[in-house]
Amino acid sequence: MSTGVQGSSLDEWLNLSAQWIGSELEAHIPLASEEPQRLHEAMRYSLFGAGKRIRPALLRLTCEHLGGAAADAVDAAMAIELVHTYSLVHDDLPCMDDDDLRRGRPTCHIVFGEDMAVLVGDALLTLAMEMLAREESARSAKWAAVLARAAGSRGMVGGQVLDVMSAEGDADVARVARIHQMKTAALFSAAAEMGAISAGASHADCRTAAEYGRALGLCFQATDDLLDVTGDAATLGKTPGKDEAMHKATLVAVLGMDGARAEARRQGELAKSCAARLHGSKSVLLLALVERVLERSA
Amino acid sequence: MSTGVQGSSLDEWLNLSAQWIGSELEAHIPLASEEPQRLHEAMRYSLFGAGKRIRPALLRLTCEHLGGAAADAVDAAMAIELVHTYSLVHDDLPCMDDDDLRRGRPTCHIVFGEDMAVLVGDALLTLAMEMLAREESARSAKWAAVLARAAGSRGMVGGQVLDVMSAEGDADVARVARIHQMKTAALFSAAAEMGAISAGASHADCRTAAEYGRALGLCFQATDDLLDVTGDAATLGKTPGKDEAMHKATLVAVLGMDGARAEARRQGELAKSCAARLHGSKSVLLLALVERVLERSA
Repeated sequence: MSTGVQGSSLDEWLNLSAQWIGSELEAHIPLASEEPQRLHEAMRYSLFGAGKRIRPALLRLTCEHLGGAAADAVDAAMAIELVHTYSLVHDDLPCMDDDDLRRGRPTCHIVFGEDMAVLVGDALLTLAMEMLAREESARSAKWAAVLARAAGSRGMVGGQVLDVMSAEGDADVARVARIHQMKTAALFSAAAEMGAISAGASHADCRTAAEYGRALGLCFQATDDLLDVTGDAATLGKTPGKDEAMHKATLVAVLGMDGARAEARRQGELAKSCAARLHGSKSVLLLALVERVLERSA
Repeated sequence: MSTGVQGSSLDEWLNLSAQWIGSELEAHIPLASEEPQRLHEAMRYSLFGAGKRIRPALLRLTCEHLGGAAADAVDAAMAIELVHTYSLVHDDLPCMDDDDLRRGRPTCHIVFGEDMAVLVGDALLTLAMEMLAREESARSAKWAAVLARAAGSRGMVGGQVLDVMSAEGDADVARVARIHQMKTAALFSAAAEMGAISAGASHADCRTAAEYGRALGLCFQATDDLLDVTGDAATLGKTPGKDEAMHKATLVAVLGMDGARAEARRQGELAKSCAARLHGSKSVLLLALVERVLERSA
């Protein structure tokens, strides 16, 4: 996949960002040699698979676009990747989506057991709270307020509940839109907003960044639904075909493939229009990121 | 159970505190009518059983002792009860302690299903983060730093891992002490320290409050181990005899009943000596609380 000159500079930037967050996490997660070793080993196993690290990249990019430095964003970027990873570990549990492949490897509960996977998720979420509080400033509390709202019962966790329950009932477009908003877009929106907060941006810019992240997240989830149909396990790093097998309420189920593609494009355009209203130094990358999400194959 | 005049004034104070935190939580947890209704209903079910609310009481008491008001402590007190409750919901899961009775009622996963119980715990923990961040101040971040350290892989969650694993191996006194420190005393210590932070106390007083809470927590867990042998389900509100059935590493297992009682008294004396070093207006209640934990029957 290529998106031309913008695409290759985005590639470089995303690689740089993934290395950055990877080494920051490496430095801040307890060592596997520290007791309880099995817990810390399992936390590291779950965090250091082949994750795309798109949420911390989005957070850092928004921060830099609005004049902040990577160092301003690092605590928040670690926290959002920790929250995302905990949600994967819990979603993969046998009592939830019952998945055995994630980030190209056996899932946490397959390797470490179900009890450990519950506790790994709990520890990762708690560590996110700790990372946000490292500098003990009002900015820390702002990040925490945004992240907790996005990740809780009115956001990601609530979306996961609706998603689990959707397998039991009839779905329509409005229902799927609500699930996507809560399950995925809330955290993308929080990532972009936390990036803006990291840069000390104005309230208006924080709101626009949040809208950009939200639309990008809806675009991402639309392509996720498409990839569940068209993708293969080797490229995805997770099991495809799960949505249909579990009768999940997806965009493809309610709109068909073409309808889902059109919705992805519509959200992508919305994200680009937000990016255009957000004046800063990295507009090219903000726009290229939308194209990348639209064209992604994994 | 009575501990004389001090005991009855403590009773009044604990009742007042339990009502206070109950109505504050009532006002701040999403209504069961809000979507996803089943999630919010299950969160409320788990929170509003017959909990003793001892951790928020400890937090408020330390705050008031050191010159703060209840209003200074309310966000932190809600957060600590949310963290405690989430840990109960997850610990009771079939893949963990597999318990069907808690706070005098069927456990969350019995009533709402295992998938919902995982998500209820996640949502309660996330809500704790949100409550701490309500005022978006540096004090919020201080609370979060203390709570996250106490509740994470180096504290409560780590202790739960060691506890689950203890069923598999030989236990000795040092091992049990470490489990009790992480699984229980870390959160009691955090409660008292967060109370001191709520009052704007000095660093030295925050440290002493943390020590008081830690010793009180070790005393509490020692009596917990004793009650698992001597208590009945109706009084405890949970299933007794679980520790022995699951071959858990308890104080009773490694020291016997008399040894466990002696350890409870030793930690109680330690807590009292900390209380004596912590100058403030509620010394009588701080001391009575230690007696209450030593003599508790539930």
